[in-house]
Amino acid sequence: MKTVTTLPELRTARAELPSPLGFVPTMGYLHDGHISLVKRARAECASVAASIFVNPTQFGPSEDLEAYPRDLPRDLSLLEAAGADLVWTPTPEVMYPPDFQTWVEVEGLTQPLEGAQRPGHFRGVATVVAKLFNGVLPDKAYFGQKDAQQAAVIRQMTVDLNFPIEIVVCPTVREPDGLAMSSRNSYLNPEQRQAATVLYRALTAAQAEYQEGQRDGKALRGTMETIITAEPLARLQYISCAHPTTLQELDEIGDDGALLSMAVYVGKTRLIDNLVLD
Amino acid sequence: MKTVTTLPELRTARAELPSPLGFVPTMGYLHDGHISLVKRARAECASVAASIFVNPTQFGPSEDLEAYPRDLPRDLSLLEAAGADLVWTPTPEVMYPPDFQTWVEVEGLTQPLEGAQRPGHFRGVATVVAKLFNGVLPDKAYFGQKDAQQAAVIRQMTVDLNFPIEIVVCPTVREPDGLAMSSRNSYLNPEQRQAATVLYRALTAAQAEYQEGQRDGKALRGTMETIITAEPLARLQYISCAHPTTLQELDEIGDDGALLSMAVYVGKTRLIDNLVLD
Repeated sequence: MKTVTTLPELRTARAELPSPLGFVPTMGYLHDGHISLVKRARAECASVAASIFVNPTQFGPSEDLEAYPRDLPRDLSLLEAAGADLVWTPTPEVMYPPDFQTWVEVEGLTQPLEGAQRPGHFRGVATVVAKLFNGVLPDKAYFGQKDAQQAAVIRQMTVDLNFPIEIVVCPTVREPDGLAMSSRNSYLNPEQRQAATVLYRALTAAQAEYQEGQRDGKALRGTMETIITAEPLARLQYISCAHPTTLQELDEIGDDGALLSMAVYVGKTRLIDNLVLD
Repeated sequence: MKTVTTLPELRTARAELPSPLGFVPTMGYLHDGHISLVKRARAECASVAASIFVNPTQFGPSEDLEAYPRDLPRDLSLLEAAGADLVWTPTPEVMYPPDFQTWVEVEGLTQPLEGAQRPGHFRGVATVVAKLFNGVLPDKAYFGQKDAQQAAVIRQMTVDLNFPIEIVVCPTVREPDGLAMSSRNSYLNPEQRQAATVLYRALTAAQAEYQEGQRDGKALRGTMETIITAEPLARLQYISCAHPTTLQELDEIGDDGALLSMAVYVGKTRLIDNLVLD
């Protein structure tokens, strides 16, 4: 496995990899969710590249950029074990030199949910992913369903800007008690870690009602809200039952199904999770 | 020479072309300036692609989108004669389907000059060029110096977003009396056509002063303004003596030289032109 930092190093290393190339962009501090993406890429592609970059432009001024967990040596050995051929670890200076001034903006899909809570977040995401795509030049790129809106935004950007890349969205990987894997879970103390299961409990409760025939969006949001607010260590930021592709809130779930999603603070840690109803 | 319209047709045709591929994006109604770009690409590359697309998103609501001249059969025979291998003629529906919602924005360089007069123009330009680049996947792309700010914006976008493409800017091609070639020259009646030489006369007068030692930006702008305002059929929109890469107005021209540029209405036709002082 080769590790490169600068764009010229990346171009040289990329040119030596056989096609099709699968790509897994990450912010590092890898967990089994990331590794599942690498393994899927390994199974589907002739070569596999990953990137590790804690992208400053997708963090708001009051968010956790400085605190975001990092462990590069561990990440590199996990990627090597999972079968990556190339890892790009650009620095902020490589990605955003002083005269950097170009942004990729996806309009409609970025407005609700995470976009409403985190202004500018998806501008940073779309811009860095465009840069990563043009650096790595993959044939397929792999993203986790846990960041459902991010996956939708990147898919839209990829189609809108004609990137010749297939976007593959892979299932959320969960701890045995249902908590979605996230690098931010490392912020939780044991008591908070216990409370954090409330997101998945709320999602599966609403899913059960859906499976029993409930199609009213407000009722499902209410079910989830009741469960979240019953957990003393949790503070609900938003809860959603939305159309799975437009991300618009639903009064009634139709044939397209729905995306249930939420953001919940447990202590100072902001957690997100979702389930697709179809 | 092959002509394609849809993106799948383009991808298939592109895959058959040998590298390096040179690309000339145009809005059609080709003149010798465009053809000089195709010939340069032909001389430097193993294969040559061009596009013809009157991009609606770079026209303002009161601009000349509907009136913009078009002659596809003539354009195609000119491109074939100049040695193009492939021409992409997307429709507005191919480029901007109903759910299109992604934009590329270059911030600083788009603020002065054309950007100040044409809000949203460079957003449309940067977005369509990103789409054209990802469709055609060229190794080199050719632009005319006549649209100096456009070339600067595209160069910046290309670097900022890591496009693996070399931007080549080619000299402005002029009529024998100095008028810069432009598809919009076709709007001019004979009297206006005569008056339109005032742009180049103003630029070369300022250039002559520079060559005699004048380094004061205001003085050179004054020289150009005096000449433009002496032409009864011309109406000055802006005049500039700016840094050649930052495009910021200069009080005094330093070692980097300057870009002299202007926009002038002759009748209802808006003409631009520029000269680099170095």
